[in-house]
Amino acid sequence: MEYEEPLFFRVMKYAADADRDVVDMVSGNPDWGSPPAVSEGLHAYADTGGDDFQYPPSEGLRELREEIAARRGVDVSQVVVTNGGGGANYLAMGRALERGTGDEIVMTDPVYPYYPGKTTMLGGTQRFVVADDEGHIDPADVREVASEDTACIVVNTPNNPTGAVYPEETMAELVAIAEDNDAILVSDEVYDHFDFSGEFTSALEYDSPHRIVTNSFSKSLAITGFRVGYAIADERHAEPMKSRHMLTSVAGSRPSQAAVLHALRNTDPDYYEDTRALLRERIAAFTEALDAAGAEYTTPEGSFYVMARFPGFPGTLENVYELIDEAGVAGMPGAGFGESRTDWLRFALVTPRAQEAADRLADYFA
Amino acid sequence: MEYEEPLFFRVMKYAADADRDVVDMVSGNPDWGSPPAVSEGLHAYADTGGDDFQYPPSEGLRELREEIAARRGVDVSQVVVTNGGGGANYLAMGRALERGTGDEIVMTDPVYPYYPGKTTMLGGTQRFVVADDEGHIDPADVREVASEDTACIVVNTPNNPTGAVYPEETMAELVAIAEDNDAILVSDEVYDHFDFSGEFTSALEYDSPHRIVTNSFSKSLAITGFRVGYAIADERHAEPMKSRHMLTSVAGSRPSQAAVLHALRNTDPDYYEDTRALLRERIAAFTEALDAAGAEYTTPEGSFYVMARFPGFPGTLENVYELIDEAGVAGMPGAGFGESRTDWLRFALVTPRAQEAADRLADYFA
Repeated sequence: MEYEEPLFFRVMKYAADADRDVVDMVSGNPDWGSPPAVSEGLHAYADTGGDDFQYPPSEGLRELREEIAARRGVDVSQVVVTNGGGGANYLAMGRALERGTGDEIVMTDPVYPYYPGKTTMLGGTQRFVVADDEGHIDPADVREVASEDTACIVVNTPNNPTGAVYPEETMAELVAIAEDNDAILVSDEVYDHFDFSGEFTSALEYDSPHRIVTNSFSKSLAITGFRVGYAIADERHAEPMKSRHMLTSVAGSRPSQAAVLHALRNTDPDYYEDTRALLRERIAAFTEALDAAGAEYTTPEGSFYVMARFPGFPGTLENVYELIDEAGVAGMPGAGFGESRTDWLRFALVTPRAQEAADRLADYFA
Repeated sequence: MEYEEPLFFRVMKYAADADRDVVDMVSGNPDWGSPPAVSEGLHAYADTGGDDFQYPPSEGLRELREEIAARRGVDVSQVVVTNGGGGANYLAMGRALERGTGDEIVMTDPVYPYYPGKTTMLGGTQRFVVADDEGHIDPADVREVASEDTACIVVNTPNNPTGAVYPEETMAELVAIAEDNDAILVSDEVYDHFDFSGEFTSALEYDSPHRIVTNSFSKSLAITGFRVGYAIADERHAEPMKSRHMLTSVAGSRPSQAAVLHALRNTDPDYYEDTRALLRERIAAFTEALDAAGAEYTTPEGSFYVMARFPGFPGTLENVYELIDEAGVAGMPGAGFGESRTDWLRFALVTPRAQEAADRLADYFA
């Protein structure tokens, strides 16, 4: 699979250029607003200057790393603050490949398209395990594909694009497969605050040098533009990941890190609960209208995406354009996420008009 | 040469832990303060929120790229906003190597230690050209080393650590050597606002697809912690550099980019002139005291570093520790910058106590 991220931009541009009103369900940009402490933290930082405007430690502000370590129950030495979740995945996958214990990266189909893109850039080889219609993977399939050539298994739970949340048994077995093949499980958990199933299990539950957990504040604090994420890894991986981070970026952005630190310390748990409640309502309204449209779909267990399939209407780029022009709804072509989802479309529930969008789809397919 | 950046941190830690007052001349962190428009821009951004807190374009905020393009007289399509100058150099060197036209990276000795570090991480081979005592390179030496194996020539003007500013003839010949060997000249010009010689010539003067110019606002706006830099490259390089940036970081930090954009638009040229005047004074005072200490040194033509050599006192790490403990002055061991400078020490003029430091050195060596 080629790196297809520019597809997002093509679809967004087509929707923006359309002659009619279009409900944008393309991007993964939260629309529900950040907690006030993000702005407060940025204002407080803007009032400093001088030394505080200079390089933070390359691995991240000490207090931020300590805050993360305390929340995740790990030693601070295991925490690397990164340029968002994307930066964390890059460092983790780069580390897995540079160990020299294989050049294959196992991932799922459908897949978040950055993973195959990073694999190719890093000189690795892509291997895919096909998920079922609900987005779940059978660990036995992963074990079959894994071998001494496996450098890394990269998964995303809660999942983009399928909404699947992998159960405890799956996570335990994925760690075991990584251990048995001298590989690293990279568990990308950026949607961990968006679990509606109660089934979410972090790979952190399994203390192993064969797993690296990546995460980000982009979605949980609705600040995708700040670029603050983190990785948690055994020191034997954390140290070379820090070096790679230093050699690619020197350090992460200090204004962003200061704002995130302040927001973590001053945001009420209600903020996260309210966001989940909002998304639960959107999911219910959107899927109800999809029923009316005669669509097949997966109800997300987590994250904020719904994959849907309409009879006789495959999820091609042409059909995406058709829906923008004729129904006024913009989604993502399933083909952007891998071969198994070419019939499907992905809709991101990042608009208060999700129900209106579903009604438009119901009208169009009536 | 191994990647020796952690040496900085070791020296800074030793100085911080010392039992006595120490003048810190180790880091490259400006101490003269940012223009007020940086804070103002950050405050203004903090008041936005919502959509403005979400992903900027991966290649950088459009208005920032336009501002840079207008200032540098290039088309906006050639501008990639990066995670500081370090990010720009990483993208440029990565691009040079991925072209497949050689795996050698030619650099100077002494060298900014990130260049050899990045070369190794990217799978390239290091080749060094030795600079003369003033830090200048003879282009004939570069031409002799360059071959069909050369992917890239990376230079830094004004130079860290030597303070040399390469004259026009050198820059013209470096571009020609890159062209003649199907290689790319990466000209790192992050100290371009700190030229005291009037001789600074940007590689941008030479319109060639064989040169990439990198730069940053870290030093010019005294915001090393914000991580905003840029590269200017022919589109055939800018496009793959944008892809690499997307795959490693998704995008740069938007709060930082917004603050830089505001600062560029609202900072009087006097700010830069005043900084240069301040540094000229520091250089004069510091070098005068070095004369009194019987040291050999280079008067910087640009940047804000002075390399000095004391009779019978090589620039080893042990001697650096000795000067911290006995003289109360912290510099960097010359060995951190390459084999040609093992006798030397580097002092960064980023403290109002530069003259005091030189007086202490004069006392110590008296």
